[in-house]
Amino acid sequence: MGLLEETLISIKPANKEVVEKAWNIIDGLTKPIGSLGELEEIAAKISGVTGKTYNKINKKSVVIMCSDNGVCEEGVSNNPQETTAIVTNNFTKGITGVCVLSQFANSDVTVVDVGIKSDINNPKVINKKVEYGTKNIAKEAAMTRIQAIQAIEAGIEVVDNLVKDGYDLLGTGEMGVGNTTTSAAVLSALSDFPVDVVVGKGSGLTEEQYVNKKMVVQRAIDINKPDKNDPIDVLSKVGGFDIAGICGCFLGAAKNRTPIVIDGFISSAAAVCACRLNPKVKDFLFPSHLSAEPGAEYMMKELGLSPMLNLRMRLGEGSGCPLAFNIIEAALHAMNNMATYEEAALNRSAYVDIREKKN
Amino acid sequence: MGLLEETLISIKPANKEVVEKAWNIIDGLTKPIGSLGELEEIAAKISGVTGKTYNKINKKSVVIMCSDNGVCEEGVSNNPQETTAIVTNNFTKGITGVCVLSQFANSDVTVVDVGIKSDINNPKVINKKVEYGTKNIAKEAAMTRIQAIQAIEAGIEVVDNLVKDGYDLLGTGEMGVGNTTTSAAVLSALSDFPVDVVVGKGSGLTEEQYVNKKMVVQRAIDINKPDKNDPIDVLSKVGGFDIAGICGCFLGAAKNRTPIVIDGFISSAAAVCACRLNPKVKDFLFPSHLSAEPGAEYMMKELGLSPMLNLRMRLGEGSGCPLAFNIIEAALHAMNNMATYEEAALNRSAYVDIREKKN
Repeated sequence: MGLLEETLISIKPANKEVVEKAWNIIDGLTKPIGSLGELEEIAAKISGVTGKTYNKINKKSVVIMCSDNGVCEEGVSNNPQETTAIVTNNFTKGITGVCVLSQFANSDVTVVDVGIKSDINNPKVINKKVEYGTKNIAKEAAMTRIQAIQAIEAGIEVVDNLVKDGYDLLGTGEMGVGNTTTSAAVLSALSDFPVDVVVGKGSGLTEEQYVNKKMVVQRAIDINKPDKNDPIDVLSKVGGFDIAGICGCFLGAAKNRTPIVIDGFISSAAAVCACRLNPKVKDFLFPSHLSAEPGAEYMMKELGLSPMLNLRMRLGEGSGCPLAFNIIEAALHAMNNMATYEEAALNRSAYVDIREKKN
Repeated sequence: MGLLEETLISIKPANKEVVEKAWNIIDGLTKPIGSLGELEEIAAKISGVTGKTYNKINKKSVVIMCSDNGVCEEGVSNNPQETTAIVTNNFTKGITGVCVLSQFANSDVTVVDVGIKSDINNPKVINKKVEYGTKNIAKEAAMTRIQAIQAIEAGIEVVDNLVKDGYDLLGTGEMGVGNTTTSAAVLSALSDFPVDVVVGKGSGLTEEQYVNKKMVVQRAIDINKPDKNDPIDVLSKVGGFDIAGICGCFLGAAKNRTPIVIDGFISSAAAVCACRLNPKVKDFLFPSHLSAEPGAEYMMKELGLSPMLNLRMRLGEGSGCPLAFNIIEAALHAMNNMATYEEAALNRSAYVDIREKKN
């Protein structure tokens, strides 16, 4: 049995008993019931992930999956393809958006080459290269099924190692010119949403380029005919190594009972794949912000998740994760340190329970 | 000339030249233009506030205005009125929601008695008591016009002193049983929005109590006939000392060119009052989260502001501010530390400018 299969069967759902215990603690804190909104939901959900009522994060990292996409030859991005390799190296210098925001949140970044077109030769980049970039999805399958599984397993392995090293809160990011195109194709294939609904302007396209991008996604689906009931088929035919690698990160985090944050559009497409492979993965996912890409809202609905942040970010890289880390840690800090009604000398019965989502 | 009048005439708008310089710096950072969304807007706006392109926050505090509302005798809240005094004292013990979240964000809390019904006798609470609670707005004016000005000036004075003490990022919070009722009345009076649109369930009301609350707000407006073109008339007739005090905080922050965060519904009502008194105040305001109260969205529209957080919080106390402080500091950290295109070895011209809001 391969690592993917092993991982899929070893994922257990959230520990409901501990979640219930966490809610009892939260509801006993000195505030109207439910009034800290999503902060309460986050704290209770983390309890279900770890199996402990009180939690404190010790080590955090954003995992950045980097790879190239053959579809770039269709002119779907303004960025030259070499940007992938340049920015991947820049992640190791600590100078990009996700790096700087991670420093602020006291988080590390873990940079993975899962399929960049060129050799990276940077000891700070984990080499999990499956292939030198994917094929052009507008003409053929991005990769073989075996390669898709390899990329997913690369993500699982990276997370396994991070957990072994003591990381207890993870986030997902990516770098890969052309990956809003592949993500839109994956989303459209999995959801049957028309291309018009899921394709956005990525990091900046003219109207003409935008029309072309939609045509390319449509062609990719028409030519490859991905099977919507088989996420690995979808990933291999119209996806990318980065999306598959992130999908593996989600599966690995669920197996290791470690909370993991979804960044933007590409991460969300990978999260949908992971949840289709095993719906229990949802219990381990924490969305950060709502990407400005139009398909993002649909994916959050499929995942049943509500993003914490409303910042119109569309940088990618995993840049939403460090901000979400802060909010998750604030939620845990509140649960661990607020007084109970008794300690606060307040009459518990004064508050009416109008919590909406819990029941 | 009184402090309020002096403050109103000394407020200057954002420094547009410095904002422009800040945008030039931000647009030169290694990311597609505009891709950090609201983080970029925040960093540029802070530059306009302080007059410096690069900014770093040294000292933060949430100012919590505490006062009682006579309208409580109409049964508009489930909380006994003594809750105001008890929670006010609890703020000084560091055990409530806003305190614990402030600790997490390395922020202080400044607790002000601007009109609690009882004597507080707590050296950690700043005594700016205007009166022992307001009158019942369902029967008469909450306070005299002179008292409204006194409460506003209390807010200005508190901010003046904090700025003198080196605080360079402030937030606003409140404690006052019944204050979602007075805030809804203020909002309805200023906006002409019908009571149905602006009244919410506060910290938890049954359907029957909710119908009663709406009737009470309508009666307050019908009896007192506040002049929508005179925010001080509105505050004095259907407001509260807490709302007036927070309004003063916003004016004081604008005068002192210090960024200040709006928390939830009550803070937003106070922000609308402050901006009606002087529209330049808007340049100094940073919204945190969108309150779950139904009028909140309308106020954000009037203020032209978009909240950073989507956490369905409705605790009040200023509890959204520490989370917003974190995001503001992350935005400044990104601006101060990201590499430029040149440093990142990337071709600047590869990115198309699709920034929406800047122009």
